[in-house]
This record gives sequence, C-alpha cells and structure tokens, in this order.
Amino acid sequence: MDNQEKIRILISFGGKLRELRLAKGFTQEQLANELGVEISQISRIERGVINTSVTTLYAIAKTLKIDVAQLFLFDTL
Amino acid sequence: MDNQEKIRILISFGGKLRELRLAKGFTQEQLANELGVEISQISRIERGVINTSVTTLYAIAKTLKIDVAQLFLFDTL
Repeated sequence: MDNQEKIRILISFGGKLRELRLAKGFTQEQLANELGVEISQISRIERGVINTSVTTLYAIAKTLKIDVAQLFLFDTL
Repeated sequence: MDNQEKIRILISFGGKLRELRLAKGFTQEQLANELGVEISQISRIERGVINTSVTTLYAIAKTLKIDVAQLFLFDTL
C-alpha cells in the first residue's frame, strides 16, 4: 500500500466517521468526552490527518453504538 | 477506557487475527509480505503487543479477503 492509498483510506474513513457521528447525534466534543480524548483528536481523525488505532476504533464504535465495519463502508480508488 | 481494557482488546483482537489468518491459510510471513511489513510486526499484532492502525487494519482485511468487522468479533471483559 503506497502513501497515496493510505491518505485516501484515512480521508474516506474520517468522512465516514463524521457521517456516522452526526447521524448518531454526537458533537465532536461529546464523542471526545466519552472517549476521554481531546476534541482536536476527533477533528484530526475526521479530516484524515491521523491514522487512529484499534483500541480507539473499538471505543468509537462502542460509544456510537455502531458496528466497526460501518466505519469501513466506503469506496477507495 | 483504562489500560487494562486496552490490553484485553488488543489481546482479543490479535487472537482473532491469528484465527482468521490461519483459517485463510496464510502464514505470518505470507501476510507480512503482502502487507509490505516485517514478519515481527504481524507477530506483535497477534500477541496484542502493538495497537495497529486503521490503514494496516484495512490492508489486512483486504489481503485476507475478510470483512474488517470479523476482526472485532470477540467478547471482552
């Protein structure tokens, strides 16, 4: 996987997170508070700037009451 | 999420990855080669030692031809 593909995946993933967060009625601040992270971290994940981890992914899915798979339902390329 | 829970999630996740990798007939070396990472990285993920990233997760699922959600089908606690 080259760097361009990584960037595409992170931007798609972040966009999907933003979409699901809004659909579940969470602000970035509410999600950040539930996860115990800075609001800026949520913002950076949603903009595809950071490559978040398995445990954060797990915690996000649990907090939003969604399946982890939903965060990966995007087309790349 | 406290540190103990993170460790439990990473160990469960790693065990599930190992199970799915073997079910798909991949050695750690084959998976590592497909992903372009060191074999020791696969070993560390499977032992729950490292908290891998969204892009590696995506690449693993794509390589093993599984749904990302399958990697999270475990009980914690």
